[in-house]
Amino acid sequence: MTESLGLNVAILGATGAVGQQMIATLEKRNLPIKKLTLLSSARSAGTRVLFKGEEIEVQEAKPECFEGIDIALFSAGGSISKEFAPEAVKRGAIVVDNTSAFRMDENVPLVVPEVNEDDLKSHNGIIANPNCSTIQMVVALEPIRKEFGLGKVVVSTYQAVSGAGAAAISELLDQSQAVLNEEEVQASVLPVKGDNKHYQIAFNVIPQIDKFQDNGFTFEEMKMINETKKIMHMPELSVAATCVRLPIVTGHSESVYIEVESEAVTAIQVKELLKTATGVVLQDDPENQVYPMPQAAVGKNEVFVGRIRKDLDEEKGFHLWVVSDNLLKGAAWNSVQIAESLLKLGLVTVK
Amino acid sequence: MTESLGLNVAILGATGAVGQQMIATLEKRNLPIKKLTLLSSARSAGTRVLFKGEEIEVQEAKPECFEGIDIALFSAGGSISKEFAPEAVKRGAIVVDNTSAFRMDENVPLVVPEVNEDDLKSHNGIIANPNCSTIQMVVALEPIRKEFGLGKVVVSTYQAVSGAGAAAISELLDQSQAVLNEEEVQASVLPVKGDNKHYQIAFNVIPQIDKFQDNGFTFEEMKMINETKKIMHMPELSVAATCVRLPIVTGHSESVYIEVESEAVTAIQVKELLKTATGVVLQDDPENQVYPMPQAAVGKNEVFVGRIRKDLDEEKGFHLWVVSDNLLKGAAWNSVQIAESLLKLGLVTVK
Repeated sequence: MTESLGLNVAILGATGAVGQQMIATLEKRNLPIKKLTLLSSARSAGTRVLFKGEEIEVQEAKPECFEGIDIALFSAGGSISKEFAPEAVKRGAIVVDNTSAFRMDENVPLVVPEVNEDDLKSHNGIIANPNCSTIQMVVALEPIRKEFGLGKVVVSTYQAVSGAGAAAISELLDQSQAVLNEEEVQASVLPVKGDNKHYQIAFNVIPQIDKFQDNGFTFEEMKMINETKKIMHMPELSVAATCVRLPIVTGHSESVYIEVESEAVTAIQVKELLKTATGVVLQDDPENQVYPMPQAAVGKNEVFVGRIRKDLDEEKGFHLWVVSDNLLKGAAWNSVQIAESLLKLGLVTVK
Repeated sequence: MTESLGLNVAILGATGAVGQQMIATLEKRNLPIKKLTLLSSARSAGTRVLFKGEEIEVQEAKPECFEGIDIALFSAGGSISKEFAPEAVKRGAIVVDNTSAFRMDENVPLVVPEVNEDDLKSHNGIIANPNCSTIQMVVALEPIRKEFGLGKVVVSTYQAVSGAGAAAISELLDQSQAVLNEEEVQASVLPVKGDNKHYQIAFNVIPQIDKFQDNGFTFEEMKMINETKKIMHMPELSVAATCVRLPIVTGHSESVYIEVESEAVTAIQVKELLKTATGVVLQDDPENQVYPMPQAAVGKNEVFVGRIRKDLDEEKGFHLWVVSDNLLKGAAWNSVQIAESLLKLGLVTVK
């Protein structure tokens, strides 16, 4: 049941992989919702979705759909966001956008509530949800930065195909079955739907996520680099990323090397810090083979951190292994969490 | 046909995943072989193997099997190597050992021919073949070290299950089919056969290869760290590794961050260097989506390097993506290559 006092919430991209997780997350959480409006392209409109016991029909997104909406969660691609976000804002909605359309816009706060919730206060109608692989990394690094400072980050990612949408999941599963049957493999989605070449992902590794920039880095890598600096308010932070797609369905992993600024920090201190950090679950007990793995993180909102160890040569160097569900903390849950923060900070009010 | 003038070569562990690749590699190469002796445990003895048109019966390994052997390639596990290597050496054979038994022994050269072939000259009967993930990395790094110096290496690996043997391959394939059938998954091999817990590898990532040491690093990680320093004759080199097992059958990938010692080195210079480096194939054309991938490296002897780019913050920092067939350059081919080098350097002679 939706509530008589509450927010009018819209989801744009309601039938996509992230949109579905947004609906599921809203159902589990206590954000008071008076009415949930589900929007999509014309192609997916008409789908019926059950939400808190009520059936909601997905409508084709049009500017007037945002009349009376308090918070609109967008996850339908960058060009759709660019088209509809100004329309929604004009009608009084706050847009939480899960695409890369506005992330580096200096008038748009880029928010991970565990890290920079206060940035929400300066919003001008649009709030950007960072890239999935950025979010989980900054949740793990922020407690360390606060306590010991942060001078350098080098990350190599191990990313699941669901980050590339539902078609990429089907492609991985179909290809996997074809390989097991010793049949020919078809590739038409990965690494990037809109790029020229497609490669097999089943039982393979593709070191490309999103297209390449002229500097040899991919856009995914540049997102991690630039977004980390913006979210942590550290334009001078040295960040490098190598982003890699793996044959797994959901759950991104990251091998992160950092250098802190304080002297004589121990691995035990870093573990103690992360044990009580908001949004983090420490899974670090090598003796009992306890460490984060994507399969165990699926369906959970937290960021799992383990394999924390001090570098053997660099006095200020540490290594971490960071895992999270890319569709939840990496997308749907972070967006809903931003909505909850907006309410908590009084930036929207229940009517 | 084996030759009338040639070497007597033995393979210990002939029926294993690496042993089979050793036989296939000897068949393709021109090392003159008078007689090939295939040895295994009692359990696998009796198997018949075709080599250059001749059927060879695998015998149970016993010390006297090494009488008259010139070169013995060992790949049957560390304890077997420790038992049989002294017996083979006592009988005049040179042992090329693919296990970790003797790698860090200061009387045993640890050799990757592209890097330190001359170390063979100081052998005392046993020569160690490095860990698979070490070999491919040092082949890529040695040309850079020689030209620009090397101060720091941080590597995150993406390792295939075949590095854990034939049982691990079966486990991955069986589990993958079970997941696709939505059936229960059985795990009894990975991450480490002899360790307490076993985890699903199909559609998952396991950040553990080999057992953990007290310092929080795994033995696989320490192998990469210590072997790299030994092979490159750089005990002072700063090396760190995070080793991760992926759901792929064959082909290890590595995301490598390095810092060189020279000033003002460009990515173009590094690419030019690797384009002509022995044992390296440069696959680096982002615009045309050309980069190394494990699926494309399977069955090939070379080390494939791509995604070479200069760090955006660290003037001496570079990123590389290094891929190779872990059963070939990582094991069988490097061992056979050592045998070829022994002959070339006159350290064995054809009779």
